[in-house]
Amino acid sequence: MKTVVVRNIKRADSNAIGTFEALGVSTVHEALGRSGLMKTYLRPIWVGAQIAGPAVTVLAQPGDNWMIHVAVEQCQKGDVLVVGCTTDNTDGMFGELLGTSLQARGVKGLIIDAGCRDVKALHEMGFPVWSRAVSAKGTVKATVGAVNVPVVCAGVNVDPGDAVVADDDGVVVVPKKYCAETAAKAQKRFDDEDGKRKRLATGELGLDMYNMREPLKKAGLIYVDKPEDV
Amino acid sequence: MKTVVVRNIKRADSNAIGTFEALGVSTVHEALGRSGLMKTYLRPIWVGAQIAGPAVTVLAQPGDNWMIHVAVEQCQKGDVLVVGCTTDNTDGMFGELLGTSLQARGVKGLIIDAGCRDVKALHEMGFPVWSRAVSAKGTVKATVGAVNVPVVCAGVNVDPGDAVVADDDGVVVVPKKYCAETAAKAQKRFDDEDGKRKRLATGELGLDMYNMREPLKKAGLIYVDKPEDV
Amino acid sequence: MKTVVVRNIKRADSNAIGTFEALGVSTVHEALGRSGLMKTYLRPIWVGAQIAGPAVTVLAQPGDNWMIHVAVEQCQKGDVLVVGCTTDNTDGMFGELLGTSLQARGVKGLIIDAGCRDVKALHEMGFPVWSRAVSAKGTVKATVGAVNVPVVCAGVNVDPGDAVVADDDGVVVVPKKYCAETAAKAQKRFDDEDGKRKRLATGELGLDMYNMREPLKKAGLIYVDKPEDV
Amino acid sequence: MKTVVVRNIKRADSNAIGTFEALGVSTVHEALGRSGLMKTYLRPIWVGAQIAGPAVTVLAQPGDNWMIHVAVEQCQKGDVLVVGCTTDNTDGMFGELLGTSLQARGVKGLIIDAGCRDVKALHEMGFPVWSRAVSAKGTVKATVGAVNVPVVCAGVNVDPGDAVVADDDGVVVVPKKYCAETAAKAQKRFDDEDGKRKRLATGELGLDMYNMREPLKKAGLIYVDKPEDV
Amino acid sequence: MKTVVVRNIKRADSNAIGTFEALGVSTVHEALGRSGLMKTYLRPIWVGAQIAGPAVTVLAQPGDNWMIHVAVEQCQKGDVLVVGCTTDNTDGMFGELLGTSLQARGVKGLIIDAGCRDVKALHEMGFPVWSRAVSAKGTVKATVGAVNVPVVCAGVNVDPGDAVVADDDGVVVVPKKYCAETAAKAQKRFDDEDGKRKRLATGELGLDMYNMREPLKKAGLIYVDKPEDV
Amino acid sequence: MKTVVVRNIKRADSNAIGTFEALGVSTVHEALGRSGLMKTYLRPIWVGAQIAGPAVTVLAQPGDNWMIHVAVEQCQKGDVLVVGCTTDNTDGMFGELLGTSLQARGVKGLIIDAGCRDVKALHEMGFPVWSRAVSAKGTVKATVGAVNVPVVCAGVNVDPGDAVVADDDGVVVVPKKYCAETAAKAQKRFDDEDGKRKRLATGELGLDMYNMREPLKKAGLIYVDKPEDV
Repeated sequence: MKTVVVRNIKRADSNAIGTFEALGVSTVHEALGRSGLMKTYLRPIWVGAQIAGPAVTVLAQPGDNWMIHVAVEQCQKGDVLVVGCTTDNTDGMFGELLGTSLQARGVKGLIIDAGCRDVKALHEMGFPVWSRAVSAKGTVKATVGAVNVPVVCAGVNVDPGDAVVADDDGVVVVPKKYCAETAAKAQKRFDDEDGKRKRLATGELGLDMYNMREPLKKAGLIYVDKPEDV
Repeated sequence: MKTVVVRNIKRADSNAIGTFEALGVSTVHEALGRSGLMKTYLRPIWVGAQIAGPAVTVLAQPGDNWMIHVAVEQCQKGDVLVVGCTTDNTDGMFGELLGTSLQARGVKGLIIDAGCRDVKALHEMGFPVWSRAVSAKGTVKATVGAVNVPVVCAGVNVDPGDAVVADDDGVVVVPKKYCAETAAKAQKRFDDEDGKRKRLATGELGLDMYNMREPLKKAGLIYVDKPEDV
Repeated sequence: MKTVVVRNIKRADSNAIGTFEALGVSTVHEALGRSGLMKTYLRPIWVGAQIAGPAVTVLAQPGDNWMIHVAVEQCQKGDVLVVGCTTDNTDGMFGELLGTSLQARGVKGLIIDAGCRDVKALHEMGFPVWSRAVSAKGTVKATVGAVNVPVVCAGVNVDPGDAVVADDDGVVVVPKKYCAETAAKAQKRFDDEDGKRKRLATGELGLDMYNMREPLKKAGLIYVDKPEDV
Repeated sequence: MKTVVVRNIKRADSNAIGTFEALGVSTVHEALGRSGLMKTYLRPIWVGAQIAGPAVTVLAQPGDNWMIHVAVEQCQKGDVLVVGCTTDNTDGMFGELLGTSLQARGVKGLIIDAGCRDVKALHEMGFPVWSRAVSAKGTVKATVGAVNVPVVCAGVNVDPGDAVVADDDGVVVVPKKYCAETAAKAQKRFDDEDGKRKRLATGELGLDMYNMREPLKKAGLIYVDKPEDV
Repeated sequence: MKTVVVRNIKRADSNAIGTFEALGVSTVHEALGRSGLMKTYLRPIWVGAQIAGPAVTVLAQPGDNWMIHVAVEQCQKGDVLVVGCTTDNTDGMFGELLGTSLQARGVKGLIIDAGCRDVKALHEMGFPVWSRAVSAKGTVKATVGAVNVPVVCAGVNVDPGDAVVADDDGVVVVPKKYCAETAAKAQKRFDDEDGKRKRLATGELGLDMYNMREPLKKAGLIYVDKPEDV
Repeated sequence: MKTVVVRNIKRADSNAIGTFEALGVSTVHEALGRSGLMKTYLRPIWVGAQIAGPAVTVLAQPGDNWMIHVAVEQCQKGDVLVVGCTTDNTDGMFGELLGTSLQARGVKGLIIDAGCRDVKALHEMGFPVWSRAVSAKGTVKATVGAVNVPVVCAGVNVDPGDAVVADDDGVVVVPKKYCAETAAKAQKRFDDEDGKRKRLATGELGLDMYNMREPLKKAGLIYVDKPEDV
């Protein structure tokens, strides 16, 4: 690991980011070919937030939040801070003071593959965090890491500037080069779904709407009338 | 595994189910002799729902929700859909569209030993789900499984038609043949508890109310006056 | 293990406890030198409570809540009940009836390294619980344990009478002999933080406020201008 | 749960069991349509054993091995003892003395969804155990459970008398009624594999041997020459 | 946490330790009233070692093994080093060089609630380690902790000088003041078991040897002849 | 995700790979600045193997090993196959037949963030595998993934051709561009360690050899003579 801060990164296209924020994680994840989703142990510390923005990335040491302090300076309005850790750790690397600092810079939220504390205060100030744990465990500032290098966070590789989308369903990362294409597909998917929802609400079966009966038969599914027939 | 759909199942007695829904999981679980409880990793995606109904069962492949689409057709008003998986999996096999479809048929809720997505939408439409994870991870429709065969879901064997009860405390399954007996015991337990609650609220000790002092002494418990006496 | 109940314990200083309850877990944990924090798998069954009190301790057998019934009698107004278990267990050892009984005695809350049930009722009556699981699984009353002996609960050793502080960030334990010193440090920390918060809110960087630039350089952190420079 | 011991159970066909023991878990599991496999947290306490036999089942309480003592009497030569637990538990419910007792009756091995101890002694006496943990934690004999009722063990429902197959790859359960059919399919699969192994050893590609190129193309897989082409 | 090294500790009685080392973990744990056992996630990095000795304790920071280097100086011939961590961590805090150093001082082995590396070399040199993980993750030497203060290691409180016993079944801790009494009970238990083992090997049932039939009946266990009778 | 196979990849320098294979994971991981280590849940299915080679990468669907069959064709003598999965999965995606096929092509071993089966046969044929589980669970061949695209495997991003090193301590990945520099550092570290080992074996303290006493004092560590002094 190089102990380095990269000052200038290329950020994902802001139009795509606007679309991602409006449509949310599940739709974007589908549009990206069902990839880029962070592991499900990452949960929002409070429900209801839905954000998207380019990633400023941090690689931190376990139990040490020094690099988060360093990263604040590299953030711009609209960014999302993404913190990976060199080893599994749940310490409370982030709390109210850092949240205040990020909010002052216009950062939209934090994704951290470690712990978070001061959850009540962060909720009250409306700063959303997705973390792997809630923990009051304080951290030291003793060992340097890196800012704006590629990091793996909750199972997904994040390059600085990639688009990060987060809501109650989780967190998905869209690589910069796929943003435009993914935004278009996501919008189309969203538009299509509304019609399907209406048909299903009337009682029409997905089996028929999606024309599944024939492929199911071909795949070997049979119907019997009673449990004893199995 | 037989790749089969069983069309006609025998459903648990509706009177018992009414009792179960009114009394909730903890009371029913006690009345069943403290068995039938699903593992605690299964959690409601939103709190406050309390349901009971006969199980329509699904055995699904990991990352594949084809059989849930098939199962919708087998559901009747008042049913609860129960999805087991052939291997541990947290993918988001269920979301808003399937929820809309099940709600249109009068299904009361979903128990799924895998992931769920669109949690905000499902909450807004009032469709309750108990799942092992929230995950936006989309699924394929490639491999068939089975509907209305016995499945193990979160550690409990569920036969089609068994009564399933779910609330904030978890999910319990009552085999069809024990429903009537269990409903009677659950009602009695509930009636008894109210008197106990009132006595405890006045400060009466459970030690006295349950006559525990003598058995505790016999089991070897002693009292000392100070830590140094241990 | 001695199967014993200790009747008279020394309780932590009530002034310190008042300070702890006002300041909350994260601040107290920092003031104690970042120790004494229970593992993060312990979560509140409902959010928003913040309590502190001297510990009455229980050592229970898995799936057996007999000792909790015994412990109720040893509790005084303002106490916090702390339950450790001889082996990992998530059964629902505690529910509405025991909560009613503890509340009648003025106990502030429960910390239990096992499961809890009746979460809706406990929320409605305002009795806070921090547990490792929610589980309707009922327990037997068959094997004795101990009350008011030292117990390890969620990774922390708790002596009877130690101060226990719990809120949405978790649970921290302050040994009796450190209470006064810790309360003073916690209050000072709290007073200091307010000034920092205000400065950060204006956009001042922690890097400057904490004078981190020089030590970071010394620790080997370098800045580069573009990703290609790494 | 009924606290009952069933004395006479129907055991799986011994010819099929002989085939299962010779072919091992992976082959049998395939022949059963890829079902019936216990969860992977169940591991052998020593490697190299391969057994099959009809199940004598036990439903035990956490931290309580009373029912295992009861079950010994119900075992016959060639049986495999299968222990499920009413709740997740890793206590050392089984050790050298019980192993000696089962071995004296000709029992082939133990499958236990809890802990095991005396692993060195059990290895030396050649008694195989598949358990979810190794733990010296002793257990009480205080609460009754059941013997020879259906139990869920490590995620699989086991009816008394079902064929249980265990080796270094894990544990699979074949319901009595599918034993003959499954044994035939397993033998055929085993015979087929030898030819395939030889062809692959010469360097022939599975892509060609299984005729996968066409279906892969149809499923959308494309080939490019350089990373930049993606 | 006080950042302190305590130089002179009182060590558990050496006669008791000799008995513990001869009898092993399961027997000692029983003699101690089934308490003091560390959690089962702690496993030996190689099988076959059986040790006992007084504990020299370390409280380490996550990802930082500085205090282990400090602790070496405090170790005497026959000691066992016990390392707790201020937060869950699996980094490889210990390897061949530290093992060489401890072995040079006559230390019998290491118990560490974190990771260990160089497992092949440690096996070859015959230095036993019980750890929660094997990990090559290197650690820093940046933040101080404490040596010879009470630590919680894998769920058990260890005071400096307490007797630690470890073998393939796990790790148990005997507080100094209970050593003599526990050694006597352990020896008695061991002597008793030999007779039981012989009787069980002849086929005598535990049900009869332990006179369990009457208490089982009283506890509500019934026998039926066929599954249909349940 | 693009469903694509990349045919021509650039492989890490073979001289560096030779050094990595000779020195092993812990030394290489240190030389890389303590990064690149896969998570510790990845374990060898048999102990004693030590390999290094350029990565051929696979991105597979849960419960589906189709892409591994595809990847075999892309492997050259000396390669290491690395399999990531689009979602957490422990199914036995790899067994004796695929092992035979890879061995026929000269592949050195497999790293798979999923399950493996036929462990006894793979051990006998000397084909090493590092997996997250052993599981007999068979897989389908229904959905395509990708070969030789970047994949995250057990928490580490692996680009095709990166050097992968694996032994009993785990698995580390060295990006192609850092291979030469890392090999040189690793060799130097290895040479240095031998002298240290000899000094430590004579009883010299690391405290003195590493000159730690002064920095420890500065970091706040104090020594006291008796526990009461704390």
